[in-house]
Amino acid sequence: MDESVVTEHADQGTVGFVGAGRIGEPMVERLCAGGHRVLLFARRPEVRARLSQLGAQPVAEAVQLAAADVVVSCLYSDRQILDVLPGIVSALRPGAVLVSHTTGSPATLERLGGQGIGIVDAPFSGSAEAVRAGRLTVYLGADDEYLPTARGIVGSYADPVIIAGGRGSALRVKLLNNLLFAAISQITLSGLAAGRKLGVTEKALLGALAVSSGGSAAARYIDAVGDSGRYVASVTPFLRKDIAACAEVAADLGVDLSALLAAASAGPLKIEAGGSGDRAADLEDQ
Amino acid sequence: MDESVVTEHADQGTVGFVGAGRIGEPMVERLCAGGHRVLLFARRPEVRARLSQLGAQPVAEAVQLAAADVVVSCLYSDRQILDVLPGIVSALRPGAVLVSHTTGSPATLERLGGQGIGIVDAPFSGSAEAVRAGRLTVYLGADDEYLPTARGIVGSYADPVIIAGGRGSALRVKLLNNLLFAAISQITLSGLAAGRKLGVTEKALLGALAVSSGGSAAARYIDAVGDSGRYVASVTPFLRKDIAACAEVAADLGVDLSALLAAASAGPLKIEAGGSGDRAADLEDQ
Repeated sequence: MDESVVTEHADQGTVGFVGAGRIGEPMVERLCAGGHRVLLFARRPEVRARLSQLGAQPVAEAVQLAAADVVVSCLYSDRQILDVLPGIVSALRPGAVLVSHTTGSPATLERLGGQGIGIVDAPFSGSAEAVRAGRLTVYLGADDEYLPTARGIVGSYADPVIIAGGRGSALRVKLLNNLLFAAISQITLSGLAAGRKLGVTEKALLGALAVSSGGSAAARYIDAVGDSGRYVASVTPFLRKDIAACAEVAADLGVDLSALLAAASAGPLKIEAGGSGDRAADLEDQ
Repeated sequence: MDESVVTEHADQGTVGFVGAGRIGEPMVERLCAGGHRVLLFARRPEVRARLSQLGAQPVAEAVQLAAADVVVSCLYSDRQILDVLPGIVSALRPGAVLVSHTTGSPATLERLGGQGIGIVDAPFSGSAEAVRAGRLTVYLGADDEYLPTARGIVGSYADPVIIAGGRGSALRVKLLNNLLFAAISQITLSGLAAGRKLGVTEKALLGALAVSSGGSAAARYIDAVGDSGRYVASVTPFLRKDIAACAEVAADLGVDLSALLAAASAGPLKIEAGGSGDRAADLEDQ
């Protein structure tokens, strides 16, 4: 991107970006393609090199992102948020916006403070391919004054953008969705197992559920991957991580979600809350 | 319908019908409109009068329906099946087909015997309005040789027609769907209640579920009726009856569905298995 293009789109403001991993990198690609001036903090030289070629401007220190009007964070965990973001938030100018894509605890974002700063929670659902296609599902929790800015920025790579409510509400919505997804997966897998005992094929039951009251997104996903065995193999690691995170957040918020957590943990999927270790594997992405 | 029309459609065979209640009466309307010769056994004079005007031919005794090529039964309960159908089945000619729309136990249909008769289970989901629009959802359990005939007849008022497998399988599929619907309703209502505690509105959560992994037909229905309170009021009587029936069928078939029954019974909906009394209220429909 040459200087003239940057100037031309200056009215869209400058975006600071941290967390250019598996999902974050294509976000930066889309922001650059959309004409935004992007300041990038990334530790890995190959990521800096790739995104520089698209017009992003690497900075040496995370705090330099505070020169931007909007900072987008796609960090992997609450721990990373508390490592990286406080310095940026305290240096942001009043009226600036921080959009955090991390699925974690609302309490973590509260700990960032940010008086006069718009802190927007924006957990997502979808793959790197979805980001590249501009089809990432993003949930937005933003106070009214910051919503248009946040929606405009994530609109570069997200559709649908689901407005969950005020600050912190998108993380709560994502938490509840994840619990329901796990619980409905368990129930549906139990139903398929019962069907096998009754001589009903998985294909027949899933075909019926697709047009019936007992149907769900989980049932559609099982049908799409082929059978319950493949589904269990593919979703168990993700759901185990999600449910462990839900348990932590519930404790953090001081709200009793034990009934939902029990429903999410009981069934053919071995995803009891409390598992760990999975997180470390993906940290390299950030 | 005049005599010439009946003759013209003679190749579609004669249909006997019993159970012309709230759902069954519009089925007869559609069968007559489709050009079928319909023999009707109905106790209520006003039903006989209405359907005679459309071309149906009332018979004095149920056993006279055995003159038909296909008998369609839309009785309310297994008890009614055992009262009414054995005499018809034993008088049917070999190769004839009985289509039973009752949601009940596969064991009840087995008790009918019917050597050389195609006994087809065809439980449905939908309203009288759906029947009149030709949009009833019907599940078919039929051995291969009887499937085309059964599908042709129910096609007069059903779309989609879901092939569940061989004889008895559609009742098993419906049973499992009903259990999953109740369990997913419970989970989703629990999620909405948790959301309220977390400051998330029902509208926001239901809007997110509509495009997310935790979504389900149950969530769509809750959104459609407006809120969880109205949903609980509208579905509780139906689900209580369904779950009681599921518990009976599980016992009848000697299969352990206790985990699914527990999931269907636990939650904001008060639908513990074992309720009764609701059945009597609707018997007048038949």
